[in-house]
Amino acid sequence: MTTDALLASDTAVDAPEDRLRRAKVASRSVARLTSDEKRAALHAIADALVVHRERIVAANADDLRRGEEQGIGASLLDRLRLDAGRIEALASAVRQVAALPDPVGQLVRGQRMYNGVMLEQRRVPFGVVGVIYEARPNVTVDIAALALQSGNAVVLRGGSAARSSNTVLVDVMRGALEAQGVAPDAVQTVDDFGRDGARALMRGRGLVDVLVPRGSANLIETVVTESIVPVIETGAGNVHVVLDESAPDDWARDIVVNAKVQRPSVCNAAETVLVVRSAAERLVPAVVAALQHEGVTVHGDDAVASLASDVVPATEEDWETEYLSLDIAMRVVDTLDDAIAHIRRYSTGHTESIVTADARNAERFLDEVDSAAVFANASTRFTDGSEFGFGAEVGISTQKLHARGPMGLPELTSTKWIGRGSGQVRG
Amino acid sequence: MTTDALLASDTAVDAPEDRLRRAKVASRSVARLTSDEKRAALHAIADALVVHRERIVAANADDLRRGEEQGIGASLLDRLRLDAGRIEALASAVRQVAALPDPVGQLVRGQRMYNGVMLEQRRVPFGVVGVIYEARPNVTVDIAALALQSGNAVVLRGGSAARSSNTVLVDVMRGALEAQGVAPDAVQTVDDFGRDGARALMRGRGLVDVLVPRGSANLIETVVTESIVPVIETGAGNVHVVLDESAPDDWARDIVVNAKVQRPSVCNAAETVLVVRSAAERLVPAVVAALQHEGVTVHGDDAVASLASDVVPATEEDWETEYLSLDIAMRVVDTLDDAIAHIRRYSTGHTESIVTADARNAERFLDEVDSAAVFANASTRFTDGSEFGFGAEVGISTQKLHARGPMGLPELTSTKWIGRGSGQVRG
Repeated sequence: MTTDALLASDTAVDAPEDRLRRAKVASRSVARLTSDEKRAALHAIADALVVHRERIVAANADDLRRGEEQGIGASLLDRLRLDAGRIEALASAVRQVAALPDPVGQLVRGQRMYNGVMLEQRRVPFGVVGVIYEARPNVTVDIAALALQSGNAVVLRGGSAARSSNTVLVDVMRGALEAQGVAPDAVQTVDDFGRDGARALMRGRGLVDVLVPRGSANLIETVVTESIVPVIETGAGNVHVVLDESAPDDWARDIVVNAKVQRPSVCNAAETVLVVRSAAERLVPAVVAALQHEGVTVHGDDAVASLASDVVPATEEDWETEYLSLDIAMRVVDTLDDAIAHIRRYSTGHTESIVTADARNAERFLDEVDSAAVFANASTRFTDGSEFGFGAEVGISTQKLHARGPMGLPELTSTKWIGRGSGQVRG
Repeated sequence: MTTDALLASDTAVDAPEDRLRRAKVASRSVARLTSDEKRAALHAIADALVVHRERIVAANADDLRRGEEQGIGASLLDRLRLDAGRIEALASAVRQVAALPDPVGQLVRGQRMYNGVMLEQRRVPFGVVGVIYEARPNVTVDIAALALQSGNAVVLRGGSAARSSNTVLVDVMRGALEAQGVAPDAVQTVDDFGRDGARALMRGRGLVDVLVPRGSANLIETVVTESIVPVIETGAGNVHVVLDESAPDDWARDIVVNAKVQRPSVCNAAETVLVVRSAAERLVPAVVAALQHEGVTVHGDDAVASLASDVVPATEEDWETEYLSLDIAMRVVDTLDDAIAHIRRYSTGHTESIVTADARNAERFLDEVDSAAVFANASTRFTDGSEFGFGAEVGISTQKLHARGPMGLPELTSTKWIGRGSGQVRG
């Protein structure tokens, strides 16, 4: 069925499919907003968030109360919490997105065809972007801002834990759009439909142009398996740091500690250190001590345990685990080949880094390790849209189709071929 | 499950999954072949096709015999047929692919990070490309050549009508690879598993990096719906030509005739002509006559019928139909807006063209029509990999994710971020 036939379909008003249809209609006008108009709309959203902060905090209090009753734990409660300061930060993030280069219309490539037709490939918005995510309500605002700046309409399905906050945030953003003369249906939520909302997004072929799941491995697996619309998988990070024979002591220690400790709960944090045997005696004691000094529990194999104290014995499960906590696995491997083989077996293809002074080994590692980002002599924590200079990020793609690694604004666009001729026909 | 865990899974030897696993292993060495090595491998394949032409023709005779018994019709039989001349053409197409620029390693973009880390994004092969296709056996060779030149392994699932031909073609290609020291498992077929072969490709998460369906709308729909691996949808073309008020007589006539007649059976052939009312009296009689002169049946609305003879009355179904034959629908619309609205309703998003002397209308059309390719004053037949200068093409994508329009070698690659540092950590 073509899009317009879908738009004409007869379903009850305010079924989730109805919201998708309205998003599709809105996407046509949003796609053609100028950069100036989009900038004004995003600034209006930022202002409105600040103006309506008390209403947002009140809705957030509902979510926090429910979360406490359900005993979701202090760290999740903290992620859920919005206060005046955090709302200011949200608004400021929206203004930062407004300052990013508009990807729509960017020339990707072009040529003059053999017959004189002038051909160009330009970035165009996807149309309707669907996002299914969990927990933090700031994602609601970040994603809406990124979608609008890239000329897309967005349909959001957030986690039930943040439902009251998300409802008010979407309502505030829609109000700001309407006041700017921008179709408010460009930002919608299907949270109120529960599972049916997520299902409509996954089955919305012809209405949803791309669907991005952000959250637990479970959520992502469900969306990838059930969706019949194109999905960009954002993924788990079982991230490795390899310490090569020639790794300098200070780089080895600093990079491992930073990759683990600087923010342990995120996907680019290191989870396993692989030490080449010829460097183990030199590096393991100091690296383990530095990690333990930062409160990290080291889960090591026998070789690691024989070189350092207070090492918890590692099992097969440790090589597979994305701890997202102050835990790290450590293993001594015979050669760089064995390190690469270990990564091949256990990595989720997010980020890996090697510490080495040997250019040959650095290049081999960068070439052979098949992950979204590979580093030599730098922390794995750099795989991040802000660090790469993209501004905010939609997520970090661990799939190979369309986008791989941190996704910024250009990754929220498609392209279109445009040809200008003067009567040319094919011979 | 990680790839290596999948590789270690215990299933019967020579289940279709086993072939996928062997393709995955082969993909690792194929990804690292140099351009010279790939060129040599493709020339070896081209030579082998010519050397083994009698064996190929004999296998093809089996398919032709079976096709005749099943009464598949003269045009399908012709598409199926391989003779010495067509095998020479196949070999020559492989040599042309070998002459195309190697996309692997191409620098997409790069920057020096704020902290001195040198960052670059380079093209890398997908890994394993799956293709499910129908009918013509030359697709088997074209796709294998494109996959190899872009550093990928390929697993093919061809139509049952060409099964004997495909089996021998794959066998000949594998022999040529082996003689060149390239892993023969880089080219495989799962034809002999029937439906289970297609199912294994669609369910091969972690083993198949991208799946491309090529063929009927039905085939594509099935793959899009059932696959849990990323799909690039290649699509049907309900292609429109709009004749605007100011369309020059000669361009209008030549472009419509060329777009319909030059090769009616392909997806970029025009299926509907929309004529703006103010130009109808001037253009319709001559355009209809020119089409009828080429043997085209015109299915027109009342306005068209009142301006030309021998017009078959058009129904709603005609606007929806991709004829792929010497038939065309023609409708008079009040304004350019109505033409764009008609396209929005009925187009499959493949290609549309406007004929106009009015720059304002040309730019509006190019901007507002949301198809993979949009032309002003040129035939729709130009949406084609060879015409765009890509060499052979994998197909024409009508989805917005990853690739849109003709897919050449770069569209068969992913990217990878590579960072080279000197001990940088995140602050």
